[in-house]
Parts: sequence; structure tokens; C-alpha cells
Amino acid sequence: MTVRSGTAEWHGNVQSGSGTVTVGDGVFEGAYSYDSRFGEGKGTNPEQRIAAGHAACFTMALSNILSAAGHPPESLRTDARVQLRNSDGVPTLARITLDTEGRVPGIVERQFQAHAEEAKRVCPVSRAGRDPRDRLDGQARRRHVMDVDIAVLGGPGGYTAAIRAAQLGDPRPAARQRHDQAADGT
Amino acid sequence: MTVRSGTAEWHGNVQSGSGTVTVGDGVFEGAYSYDSRFGEGKGTNPEQRIAAGHAACFTMALSNILSAAGHPPESLRTDARVQLRNSDGVPTLARITLDTEGRVPGIVERQFQAHAEEAKRVCPVSRAGRDPRDRLDGQARRRHVMDVDIAVLGGPGGYTAAIRAAQLGDPRPAARQRHDQAADGT
Repeated sequence: MTVRSGTAEWHGNVQSGSGTVTVGDGVFEGAYSYDSRFGEGKGTNPEQRIAAGHAACFTMALSNILSAAGHPPESLRTDARVQLRNSDGVPTLARITLDTEGRVPGIVERQFQAHAEEAKRVCPVSRAGRDPRDRLDGQARRRHVMDVDIAVLGGPGGYTAAIRAAQLGDPRPAARQRHDQAADGT
Repeated sequence: MTVRSGTAEWHGNVQSGSGTVTVGDGVFEGAYSYDSRFGEGKGTNPEQRIAAGHAACFTMALSNILSAAGHPPESLRTDARVQLRNSDGVPTLARITLDTEGRVPGIVERQFQAHAEEAKRVCPVSRAGRDPRDRLDGQARRRHVMDVDIAVLGGPGGYTAAIRAAQLGDPRPAARQRHDQAADGT
């Protein structure tokens, strides 16, 4: 078991106070505030942290799967976007969108796509939100998604993954494919 | 709706390759690798990112609740620890532990504890994993927790929150209280 840490400090009330975020034992330390979170003020915010973490996790999982299939990637790049929106009047981390582009020798887009789907299924961060009951109960799953409009980190409701593959020697990126993840991760 | 971003790049196979994580538009950029993730190698890893994000989110939510109750905090500090462990043979983000200490004028520990519980319920990152069916189906909820051993980000299975409160003028931190969050977030 591996344990990783992060710390936040806050002083004062939420609108005029200020905070500090520390990653690990000091890999990064930076300020955050109401304005850097909900406005465009300078500083970081929790959602950026989650986005970077999910992008890093998914990308490493995809490299692992591609390597195991005999196609170690020349490069992979994943952009993650985390949406914060009101749900029942409360700000909620509502959706994570991943957009991955890869340069992978000897592979076609369909294979890349299948490997990306597998990475989505096994990425440790994605697995944080998985619920085994969704495999059994499609009705409840749909209700969950519609009622709450939460896209768990790769779990029930899923994230939207837009995946592009570019073959080596082909400067044109393949057409973007956008698809909603099924709740059971397949 | 607010959208926040993070990016990861990876080159090569998973064990000897290397990656870069970027937070937002460059608030932070740093290297990560197999060894910085699963070993003790230098660099960052996705779990640190998630830990920092959850700590920052929870701390800000708690400041908000305390301020609304007429007790803006002098200081709050939250340490988050993310556990990565094998589940069904696959590394999984299995548990997040938050440990919060506050210096809050004019409040007693019982009140602090109650406000912290509320923060756990409304923190946008915690809400990412919430499943409304758990309110209706205790049986399924317990099966979920036991079978999968996943502590969603504040959702079914919950995180363990260890919360300490120190009153102003009292240099001794109050006794630590540790309690597992009920699956319905209450």
C-alpha cells in the first residue's frame, strides 16, 4: 500500500481569507483564494489539482497497457478538464473530461481507442468512484446519472473521454471521437 | 460553471519512461515516473495531486461554514492522505483520510466537529462520489463497501476524518477523534 499526502491551510473567512496548498512534502506550495477558485484570480484551486492528478493517472495507465501490448508509446498527452457546477444548490465536481492524443508506432486508431478504454477502466483514480451495483442495475444507474448529474471520477455516470490517435508518420491527427463512458466502465 | 484543467505527458513505456504533469496553465509543472509513483523516487505522482485537491477543497468548505455560523477561523489546517492499494489485483485509490485542526475563536469542539461533518457533506470534491441510492438502500451500501473496499472521495464508504479542534487561548489540542463517515454523508 502506498500513501501520498497533501496539505491545505486557510486563514480567515472564505471570501476575504487566504489559503496555501502543499503537495506531498513540498513538491509544490502555492496560494489559493476564493477568487482563484471561483473567479479568475491568480493562484491555484482544488479542481486544477484533481484535473492534473487524473490526467497523470490515466496517461500512465495507458502507457502501461500499450507497452504490455507491444506498443510502447512515443508520446501520450492528456488534457483533463474538471467542471464545477451547482447541483442541488451546492457547488459540485460534476464532470471530468479527458482528451488524449498519442503517437504510438505500429498501431491503428481502433486499437488505440480500445486500449484507452481499458486504461479508463483500470486507472486507479478512475476506479475510486466505481460502484459494482451498476453492473447489475441499469435502471438505477440511469436514474443516478440523471438525478444527480455527477460524473464520478471514472465511476457511475462516467467521464467523457475524447480520444485522438495519431499514427507515426501521419501528421494529421485522426478524427476526434467523443463518447460517454458507460457506467460499468466498459 | 467553472472549468479547470490539468495536463499530463508521457514518453516511453511505463517502467523506464518519464512523464510531466502540468497544473492549470502552468501554476506547477513537474516530472513523474514509475518510481515517483510506486516507489520513493523524486518527483510527483497523481495521488499527491488528489490529496492536495481534497485537502484544499475541504478546508475552504469548512471556512465557509464556520464563517456563516459567525466563527470565521483564525486558522485551519488539513492533511490528506491518499491510499493506493490493490483491489481485485489492480491498484486503486482506496481511501482518503483527512485530518483537520482548527483554531476558531468562540467555538467548542463539539460545534467544530459538527461543522466539519457539514463540510464533509458539501465539499465539492467529496460530492463527486456521492450516490443518492445509498440513502435508500443500506443493504446494498454495506455490500458495496465490503466487496470493493473503495472509499470514494467522500461518497459511499466515505473517508475517515480525524478532526481536532483547539480553542483560542488553549495551547493543548483537543483529543483526537477518529470516526468513519457514514455512507450517506451524515
